[in-house]
Amino acid sequence: MKLLEGAVDHGGSLGRARALFPNAVLPFVDLSTGINPHSYPLFDLPATSLWRLPEAARGRELIGIATTTYGAPSPANVVAAPGTQILLPRVASLIAPGRALVLGPTYAEHARAADIAGHEVAEVSDFAALAGADLAIVVNPNNPDGRVIERDRLLALAAGLRAKGGLLVVDEAFMDVGPREHSLAGDADRGGIVVLRSFGKFFGLAGLRLGFALSDAETVRRLDTQFGPWAVAGPALEYGIRALADIAWQDAMRGSLADASARLDALFGRFGVPVAGGTTLFRYLSSLDAAGLFSALGEAGILLRHFADRPHVLRAGLPGSEEEWQRLESALAVWASRREDQPKGSKR
Amino acid sequence: MKLLEGAVDHGGSLGRARALFPNAVLPFVDLSTGINPHSYPLFDLPATSLWRLPEAARGRELIGIATTTYGAPSPANVVAAPGTQILLPRVASLIAPGRALVLGPTYAEHARAADIAGHEVAEVSDFAALAGADLAIVVNPNNPDGRVIERDRLLALAAGLRAKGGLLVVDEAFMDVGPREHSLAGDADRGGIVVLRSFGKFFGLAGLRLGFALSDAETVRRLDTQFGPWAVAGPALEYGIRALADIAWQDAMRGSLADASARLDALFGRFGVPVAGGTTLFRYLSSLDAAGLFSALGEAGILLRHFADRPHVLRAGLPGSEEEWQRLESALAVWASRREDQPKGSKR
Repeated sequence: MKLLEGAVDHGGSLGRARALFPNAVLPFVDLSTGINPHSYPLFDLPATSLWRLPEAARGRELIGIATTTYGAPSPANVVAAPGTQILLPRVASLIAPGRALVLGPTYAEHARAADIAGHEVAEVSDFAALAGADLAIVVNPNNPDGRVIERDRLLALAAGLRAKGGLLVVDEAFMDVGPREHSLAGDADRGGIVVLRSFGKFFGLAGLRLGFALSDAETVRRLDTQFGPWAVAGPALEYGIRALADIAWQDAMRGSLADASARLDALFGRFGVPVAGGTTLFRYLSSLDAAGLFSALGEAGILLRHFADRPHVLRAGLPGSEEEWQRLESALAVWASRREDQPKGSKR
Repeated sequence: MKLLEGAVDHGGSLGRARALFPNAVLPFVDLSTGINPHSYPLFDLPATSLWRLPEAARGRELIGIATTTYGAPSPANVVAAPGTQILLPRVASLIAPGRALVLGPTYAEHARAADIAGHEVAEVSDFAALAGADLAIVVNPNNPDGRVIERDRLLALAAGLRAKGGLLVVDEAFMDVGPREHSLAGDADRGGIVVLRSFGKFFGLAGLRLGFALSDAETVRRLDTQFGPWAVAGPALEYGIRALADIAWQDAMRGSLADASARLDALFGRFGVPVAGGTTLFRYLSSLDAAGLFSALGEAGILLRHFADRPHVLRAGLPGSEEEWQRLESALAVWASRREDQPKGSKR
């Protein structure tokens, strides 16, 4: 088994943030992830959800609700797992080792998972190139830039891959905030397609670890067998069942997130930070002095996501509380004023 | 990929119990598992453990505590996963497909996992036969009969397997209640050994999904890579860190469980039910009319574990509350009196 060297860098680690910015104003305002800061309302978990093995009937209930909410063809097309992350190497192992192409730049764990599964992995920037893959991976909408591939194009790609025994994986981790008309959830039974859905991001409950794969029934059965009984913990089952069924909350939240992301764009705009895309759960900042902004905000205790291999882009999640919005605004104001001072300073 | 047909039957499903005993006295007294009915004390989880991605530093803390509590050589020899169950196919996949031998009868998921991993699987009843395996699997102490294989014999077996590139998997799911001098946790770095430890059974928190594999550092790294970051959910991290570090609770619990299992043996003994072994988390009932006792108790709402392929044995977990003890005693009394009446009745 060949492994990529080293771990992939991710957002969402306060430990790493403390190491980077030891003198930062605390607590950190963590905008380094695309996780909704307004979580599904917390409730008291039944003690039995901790004490007892997760009940199979409760697992079937979760699958039924996920089927409806995501719009999968049937419950036989949906499998639940303890987070989408743990699904990735299993999904990549569904076909024999071959050529894996990842439409990039995107979430780095896909390349790692395909590598673990024994594929030769390359990143391509041209969608059309994916047709040459045995395993093609598209994050839709994409993280971090929000690029959307239309459903028709994905279905055409899937048909081509299927004809040669290949597989299209569409990671719809952020599809809860749309554009849902381009989701392949309803097409998951066509064969040669695996759609991944994440619970924790949109519902703001990333610690619970819950994710889904949608595919044809035989593939779902193969994945399910790998995870065995009780793969989803009791707390994740309880929250998954309640939150995925709560369509009113989901619809209202989509509206709130759209408002919040518009507010974030306006705020960045006031300080001359160009927003180049994203979803309503995160914004993609491009063509800027990313390192300078990342450091200035980090020292003020505000964490964005930077990318080691792409020095000119950043990703910003949504502030949660009004206090967090104010801290971001203040930090941007300080950064902007320093930037204006800089040319004068260098002439001195 | 070859799969065993059908799912493995397990204890711990109230849905299945309701289907089997639709007229049972409710609520069920579930003695069908080996899960401790006296859980580690529940506490309020920090909201961040649900909201945020599990923090890497907190994961390292858990590994450090597990290393000490289980007696592993070093933290590099321990990997955590969302339950032991999900580890099984990954562990069975550590070596190339070959001959897997499971010391049986035992927990059925081991054979299933080895089969998923592509091995030719057979169950053997003679420990010495395991030397002929590429992958040898021993549950120690064994579930359901409590049979213990001495550490020296296991180490000798492991040395033989290691010499030919094989692997010994020792599932110590119930080793928390001993005999711990026969644990291979401290030998996990010798190579060719994987020790599995379960959190949920002894700590009575099976719904959280937390398990560990102990092995040499390279094998731990390979397993860790398969699971990726955030494999263990926030709630499991929090409980794992607190409970595994609480040696006083563990020591007291071992004493309580010994008392409770002695009480259970005495109760069964009063009604002529032979106890043939087990651990202090479950008792193994053998040489009896298993189907009759299972049905009689089931109708009274008391669930034991029966085994479809072994009609003369049952497994009984520990009652929790005094009410559960009383219900078990009453049900046993009714069963015993009916049994005594039967010969007379048939003469009428």
